[in-house]
Amino acid sequence: MDDSFFLFDCGEGTQYSLFKLQPKIVNKRLCLAVSHMHGDHVLGIPGLLLSLGLSSRTRELMVLGPRGIRGFVRDVLRYIGAMTPYAILFHEVRDGSEGEFCGVKVRVALGRHTATNYAYRLDGREKPGRFHPERAMALGVPRGPLWKRLQNGFPVTVDDKIVEPKEVVEPSTRGASIGYSGDTRPSRKLVDLFRNVDVLISEATYLDEDRGRALENLHSTASEAARLAAEAGARHLILTHFSSRYKDPLVLLEEARRIFPRVYLAREGRRFLLTPEDLLSRDEPFY
Amino acid sequence: MDDSFFLFDCGEGTQYSLFKLQPKIVNKRLCLAVSHMHGDHVLGIPGLLLSLGLSSRTRELMVLGPRGIRGFVRDVLRYIGAMTPYAILFHEVRDGSEGEFCGVKVRVALGRHTATNYAYRLDGREKPGRFHPERAMALGVPRGPLWKRLQNGFPVTVDDKIVEPKEVVEPSTRGASIGYSGDTRPSRKLVDLFRNVDVLISEATYLDEDRGRALENLHSTASEAARLAAEAGARHLILTHFSSRYKDPLVLLEEARRIFPRVYLAREGRRFLLTPEDLLSRDEPFY
Repeated sequence: MDDSFFLFDCGEGTQYSLFKLQPKIVNKRLCLAVSHMHGDHVLGIPGLLLSLGLSSRTRELMVLGPRGIRGFVRDVLRYIGAMTPYAILFHEVRDGSEGEFCGVKVRVALGRHTATNYAYRLDGREKPGRFHPERAMALGVPRGPLWKRLQNGFPVTVDDKIVEPKEVVEPSTRGASIGYSGDTRPSRKLVDLFRNVDVLISEATYLDEDRGRALENLHSTASEAARLAAEAGARHLILTHFSSRYKDPLVLLEEARRIFPRVYLAREGRRFLLTPEDLLSRDEPFY
Repeated sequence: MDDSFFLFDCGEGTQYSLFKLQPKIVNKRLCLAVSHMHGDHVLGIPGLLLSLGLSSRTRELMVLGPRGIRGFVRDVLRYIGAMTPYAILFHEVRDGSEGEFCGVKVRVALGRHTATNYAYRLDGREKPGRFHPERAMALGVPRGPLWKRLQNGFPVTVDDKIVEPKEVVEPSTRGASIGYSGDTRPSRKLVDLFRNVDVLISEATYLDEDRGRALENLHSTASEAARLAAEAGARHLILTHFSSRYKDPLVLLEEARRIFPRVYLAREGRRFLLTPEDLLSRDEPFY
């Protein structure tokens, strides 16, 4: 997002997938956003940090997460006698935390799970539209301060003729927004956090027929994830974190699609591309 | 070994391979023997312990390793809020440690690496040969205490005729012995530890042409592993822990084979079966 990479949670083995899908990530601006301190969400962090070091990363790395994330990383690295050749910046978040990390606006809300769980929302910056110098020249606007005025959104007058910015500058595009739920029951707080996001990435551990388990373990069903997306006005929904009790997670997609049509399944190695018009899969199969 | 499983070291992702290769390991007698506290040797331990718990293991699990292994496991489980539904017994080893763990005689020697590294030797119990009741009957030995005497290796007299144990009991088989080097330079101490083992599993990080790196990082070359096996009188040698600088680790095999012919490469998912006569691969390809 805006030339920054955000990694939400990092279970065991994540580094292998990450380096395969993003071999050039080593020295990119990277923020690891951790939802909660359960093993399947954090046990891959030390290995990822080590491998980035062995790959000669020098750029600082940002880690957001609940209280304990800093101690966990620090203590594990101490036990294995490892120092990273780059700085790791930690920010332990709370309910309502807001800030800019890796150039992206981040907001945090507390979920409801068996461990303290935080959901994240990212909002990319609005990008100015492309300026067309050849159009400005054709309209008689000379290179120089007048171009700057047009790029900044003000009309200029040339030879008693008014040139409007829209004649030479394409419309600005608002930044993309992404929500990530972590592991949680749905809640009003999450609906508010995820208001109008372009993409909501939500856990969908169970089918509605196993809602008793979702209530017991404080997870969401596919239907509940779909309703969360609908109530928040999300444009697209990506489901993830499926219970292994379902041989084929397509059943979760089908359940969610009855409530929210623009829903997709996260699968190992699947990449999505968000465009102003749509969410596209960069890989086959896509469903 | 003798119905016990030993897992030497446990890097990130080991649990996935282990459950694939040994799906029934969940409640088996299991000993994890850790050579040293580097990330590629220990970062898979917490995830394995969690998954064994989620698979409802109830049997205690033994962990051998250097000082720090107990604190590492305890602290990581505490950070992720996990309790295992089975007991974990720790034994922090030292140079010269000896003991019986999971029914197997274990000996430990200090290696020479950038972290405190221990090499392990396992010696299985001698197994009594099979007793053939039908042969005893045919020789006129009645079921009862005389059978026991024969099984214990004493001749018996029936109707003034002497029956020797070897007539009714197959020869006993000595227990198999296995050595594992961890990460280390070769040394006299290791030659002594690995004397006459059936199988030596040795690191072979480098080729001899990169011996400078082996000296700097305190690893072994393939030739050095082969010489260690030859000097110790090992029957078979399995090489593991290859530097990623070699596209195809076959070059390491070739280098070692010039010195020690009965050498094999450990590869992801490859299983070996040790018989009294030979070391067999249970999988193709084998080389």
